[in-house]
Amino acid sequence: MARATAAASTTREPYDPVAWRDGRLWLLDQTLLPAETRYIPLDSVEAAAEAITTMRVRGAPAIGVTAAYTLAVVAASTRSGVGAAVEEAAMLLGATRPTAVNLRWALNRVAARVAAAGSDEEARAAALDEARAIHEEQHDADARMAELGAALFPPATRVLTLCNTGPLATAGGGTALGVIVQGWRSGRLAEVLACETRPRLQGARLTAWELQQHDVPFRLVVEGAAASLMAAGRVTAVVTGADRVAANGDTANKIGTYMLAVLARHHGVPFYIVAPVSTLDPHTPDGASIPIEERDEDEVLRPGGADLAAPGARALNPAFDVTPAELIEAIVTEQGVLRAPYGPSIAAAVAASSPQGIEVPS
Amino acid sequence: MARATAAASTTREPYDPVAWRDGRLWLLDQTLLPAETRYIPLDSVEAAAEAITTMRVRGAPAIGVTAAYTLAVVAASTRSGVGAAVEEAAMLLGATRPTAVNLRWALNRVAARVAAAGSDEEARAAALDEARAIHEEQHDADARMAELGAALFPPATRVLTLCNTGPLATAGGGTALGVIVQGWRSGRLAEVLACETRPRLQGARLTAWELQQHDVPFRLVVEGAAASLMAAGRVTAVVTGADRVAANGDTANKIGTYMLAVLARHHGVPFYIVAPVSTLDPHTPDGASIPIEERDEDEVLRPGGADLAAPGARALNPAFDVTPAELIEAIVTEQGVLRAPYGPSIAAAVAASSPQGIEVPS
Repeated sequence: MARATAAASTTREPYDPVAWRDGRLWLLDQTLLPAETRYIPLDSVEAAAEAITTMRVRGAPAIGVTAAYTLAVVAASTRSGVGAAVEEAAMLLGATRPTAVNLRWALNRVAARVAAAGSDEEARAAALDEARAIHEEQHDADARMAELGAALFPPATRVLTLCNTGPLATAGGGTALGVIVQGWRSGRLAEVLACETRPRLQGARLTAWELQQHDVPFRLVVEGAAASLMAAGRVTAVVTGADRVAANGDTANKIGTYMLAVLARHHGVPFYIVAPVSTLDPHTPDGASIPIEERDEDEVLRPGGADLAAPGARALNPAFDVTPAELIEAIVTEQGVLRAPYGPSIAAAVAASSPQGIEVPS
Repeated sequence: MARATAAASTTREPYDPVAWRDGRLWLLDQTLLPAETRYIPLDSVEAAAEAITTMRVRGAPAIGVTAAYTLAVVAASTRSGVGAAVEEAAMLLGATRPTAVNLRWALNRVAARVAAAGSDEEARAAALDEARAIHEEQHDADARMAELGAALFPPATRVLTLCNTGPLATAGGGTALGVIVQGWRSGRLAEVLACETRPRLQGARLTAWELQQHDVPFRLVVEGAAASLMAAGRVTAVVTGADRVAANGDTANKIGTYMLAVLARHHGVPFYIVAPVSTLDPHTPDGASIPIEERDEDEVLRPGGADLAAPGARALNPAFDVTPAELIEAIVTEQGVLRAPYGPSIAAAVAASSPQGIEVPS
């Protein structure tokens, strides 16, 4: 990957969710968006851990990039014994989101470079170099996915997406949203529709803000309107990201993704997943093996603390769903556009990435 | 219909959305629910028109009942020339919701009784008698639909509904929600799930409140969760109301209804409509003839005036959708459970109701 251009990595997007500037790590606080665009400095491992835990940064790749730079912060601020300090910080950060695959992978990469360094001085340089490399590789992977994904759109495509999958989620160009931005810039899109994505409204809050930053016109819709918009010909492609893709292509993602896939199939609309190879999990055989997290009822009933529903009402709040591989037209990765049968195509993409170190921890 | 029992009509439900008590008309202000249960007196045609326009009362049948009682209020408060006063009030009320079929039908019924009266004294009595009859007939029709609909549920049915279709919407026992309450009371339901119903959250605010009043346990879900809940076996029947049923059975209803119908078909779950005969519109040949109202973007973007989405974002807000007849397992009316082919079954139900005066104005 092009490490030589790493220094330019934070200038490609109209905003930097994670940025290394003048020797400090800066984070765009996503909990304040879209009302306020405020950068906070992450000057310690404690500040970074707090930011990850409270979702000031979210999206598995963006968390990985943030954690990697945090180890560079720790290295830079440690006078002696950089290796031990970085190792301790990696342990602390790794515990903030125990299931985040990218987080552990990024921490391991930086820690390994630091451990191999011959001096504290070398270790400091190595930590920052590796963090920048991880960030740069994310940009490269996202740019490649954007290119491959946008090429799938015939002229005048009307695209619908869900949740937030832009730079905020990856610290690169984004996954599904990167494809949409590229599709718009290359003149292939006639319309961009974004589901508001209840209960946490990532579409209304974050995707809307990101599309504005990229000057891509769009309309927000409630999830309940997706079906009739498809029936009316207002949607000719559906594109979403993924939280985890099983070995057979079954894909776990934000609640509502499976709904869109079923509706797309019913209306003859292609449904695409955009996900880096690091999201492909060959250790999970199929969707039935993916546990579905049920989150707090209050996300539905009283977002922000104010009662939305009748007081005393209960809710069911499954946060993710699983889309069976047979409903997925293609999975766009930086290693190419994967098609059914997904077993072999996913295995090949993972194998092709492994020499570069992109391997899913077991 | 059983006019003799009209006086008991307001005691059947745990609350009265519209009530005639001690010579005054009282309305449960639905805009304050669920935070506050406040009754407001409607002592004039102006007060009633304001209540209808601002949706303090909503749901086509409930609006019709309110308007009918309002003519009784006008009659009671007019010293002489009751007929002319009632006619003028009917004109004013009819203009509040120009497309509401039940509203005009109810006003015409009361006005006709008043016009046929021999004196002001007789006219006052006739207006109240007819309003009570309309209210009572709604109770009877809703009770019959509840009975017929609940009988469709096999034991341990897990039901999902959308929007608000309870007593608040009809001033009787409700349509789809009446079926669910009856299904629960008769021990046929293992679970009740209610979609929150974005953008206006009628499910979260009103259906939740109504189910609480009826002591029916339930869970709210976001629309995006409907598909995965069906896949998980948590939904074995879907029941909704209808805004208008075309002559061929195509059904217009709250946005999201068509989505549920497509998802239900995909998962082999029966999808039922519950609607009184007054909602069947033999003058509309099919769904393509039903115009879909697009409502204000602010309902999606800034409900209650506070920005939910990124400032400056735009939205598409189709308020209704059309479910093709072929996705509907049955339409439950007070004249019986209608099945495909819907052309003949709907025509027969309308014909059977016409002698009782339930006829859709052209």
